[in-house]
Amino acid sequence: MESEIFSIEMNVRDYECDMQGIVNNSVYQNYLEHARHEYLKAKRVDFKLYTEKGINLVVIRIELDYKYPLASGDKFLVTVDIKKESKIRFAFFQDIYLLPDKKPVLLGKVIGVAVNSNGRPFFPEEFKEIFTI
Amino acid sequence: MESEIFSIEMNVRDYECDMQGIVNNSVYQNYLEHARHEYLKAKRVDFKLYTEKGINLVVIRIELDYKYPLASGDKFLVTVDIKKESKIRFAFFQDIYLLPDKKPVLLGKVIGVAVNSNGRPFFPEEFKEIFTI
Amino acid sequence: MESEIFSIEMNVRDYECDMQGIVNNSVYQNYLEHARHEYLKAKRVDFKLYTEKGINLVVIRIELDYKYPLASGDKFLVTVDIKKESKIRFAFFQDIYLLPDKKPVLLGKVIGVAVNSNGRPFFPEEFKEIFTI
Amino acid sequence: MESEIFSIEMNVRDYECDMQGIVNNSVYQNYLEHARHEYLKAKRVDFKLYTEKGINLVVIRIELDYKYPLASGDKFLVTVDIKKESKIRFAFFQDIYLLPDKKPVLLGKVIGVAVNSNGRPFFPEEFKEIFTI
Repeated sequence: MESEIFSIEMNVRDYECDMQGIVNNSVYQNYLEHARHEYLKAKRVDFKLYTEKGINLVVIRIELDYKYPLASGDKFLVTVDIKKESKIRFAFFQDIYLLPDKKPVLLGKVIGVAVNSNGRPFFPEEFKEIFTI
Repeated sequence: MESEIFSIEMNVRDYECDMQGIVNNSVYQNYLEHARHEYLKAKRVDFKLYTEKGINLVVIRIELDYKYPLASGDKFLVTVDIKKESKIRFAFFQDIYLLPDKKPVLLGKVIGVAVNSNGRPFFPEEFKEIFTI
Repeated sequence: MESEIFSIEMNVRDYECDMQGIVNNSVYQNYLEHARHEYLKAKRVDFKLYTEKGINLVVIRIELDYKYPLASGDKFLVTVDIKKESKIRFAFFQDIYLLPDKKPVLLGKVIGVAVNSNGRPFFPEEFKEIFTI
Repeated sequence: MESEIFSIEMNVRDYECDMQGIVNNSVYQNYLEHARHEYLKAKRVDFKLYTEKGINLVVIRIELDYKYPLASGDKFLVTVDIKKESKIRFAFFQDIYLLPDKKPVLLGKVIGVAVNSNGRPFFPEEFKEIFTI
C-alpha cells in the first residue's frame, strides 16, 4: 500500500525574478515555507495558531540543491514529506518540479524543531499523529 | 601572517520580520547574497556587469545552520570567505554574527559556479586572482 | 452589454505577514503587479518578452487606499481594469477583496507608461487593441 | 530658524532588482517603511514595542510618484517629514534621492493612524511630542 506524497501547485510571479531573469535563490525558501505550512494545515497543525500560543516552529538547518532555475510564466509542484530525525527534530523533504514535465528544479531538506514559550525545544502532542501515519 | 576575513555590517529592517517577530528564514539568504556581491565587487567582480555580459553566477547548493534568530533592531555582521571546491566550483563560507557580542546567528556554505551564455559552466579568468590570494 | 472585470484569486502566504500578524503593506504591490501581468498576458502582452525587447512597462504613480488588512489563511480577489489617461499614459484600477464575502481590502490606481529602449515614452501598437474593447 | 529634515542613507541590494534590472516598485515601500521606523525610533517611538503592546501603527493611504528608477550599486537618501492631517491622522512626507547628486527618485505621501487593541483609531500620547517640534 503506497502513500501519496503531499504537494501543491504554484506559479512563478514576475516580481520573484531577479536581474538574471530567473527566480531569485531566496524565493525558493518562500515556496518551501508556504508548502510546509499548507502541509501542516492539512494535518490540522496551524502555524499561525501555534505562534499565537507561544509555540514557535523553528528551522534549524536547511540543505538545498538547485538543479534548474524557474523563470517567468513557469508552473511548478512543491512536495512535502516528513520524517522524524531524533526525539525532537523532524525533517521535511521538499522538492520542486517544473510542470508539466516534472523536471527537477530543487531538492531540499529542512530540519525543524518546536520551541515552547520558554525557548525550550519539545515534541508537540499533535505532531505524534503526523508521524504515525 | 594572518588574513582578514571580509565582512559587512547590516541592520534588521522591520519588514524582514515575520509573524513570529523574528527575521524570516528566507531573508538570511538575501543577507548572504548581498554580502557575496559586496565581496565580489571588492574583488572587482561586478555581479551586474557579469549578468549583462551573459555570464550568470549560479548557486548550486546551499547549507544553512540557523543558530539564533535575529529580531527587530538587531545589528549583525555577515562574513564571506571563499574556497575552490573543484575545477569549476567555488564555495562561499558565510556566517552571521549578532553585534556587538558576536553571538553566532547562522553558519552557511554556498556553492556556486559560473555559467556562460551557452549555459555551460566554466571558471572565469578574473576569478583566478581571487583564489591566489 | 456588460463587460466583465478581469480578476484573479490568490491566497495569503505566511511569509508575507509581518510582526503585526498581517500582510505587510508593500506586499499588496506584489499582488497588484502579479494581477496586472496576468491581465496583460490574457491580452497577449507578455511583460517578460517586452522587457527582453527593451520595452519597459513602467509605473509612474501609485495610489493605494488600505481598507482592511489581509491575514494568514485569507483568500482574496485582485481585479484589474484599464483606462487611457492621456496619449501615452494608462491607468490600472485595481482593487482587492477578501473572499468569500468580498469585503474591500484595498482600492488602487496604478498609472503606467511604456518606455522604449532609448528611454522615451510611447504608446505600443499592441496596446491599442486593449483599449478599443 | 530652520529645521533639519530627517533622512537615512541606504544602498540598493541586488536581490531588490527585478528582471528589468531596476529596483522593483514594491521595494520602495520597504525603503519608506524602514525610514519611517528609524524616524519614529529617533523620536522614541519603537514600532516593535507598540506592536507588542497591541497598538498597531497602520497605513491607510499611500501616494507614490516614481521619478527615476534605482539600479544595482546605487546609493540613495530617504527623507521623513511628518504632519498632522486630522485629529487622529498623520502624514509622512517621504522622498527618495539618488546620491551623490540628489536626483529625485520617488516622492511619497504615506497617511497613517494608530489603532488600539480594540481596533479603534486614536492619537497616542507620545505622538504629541513629535508634532509640537
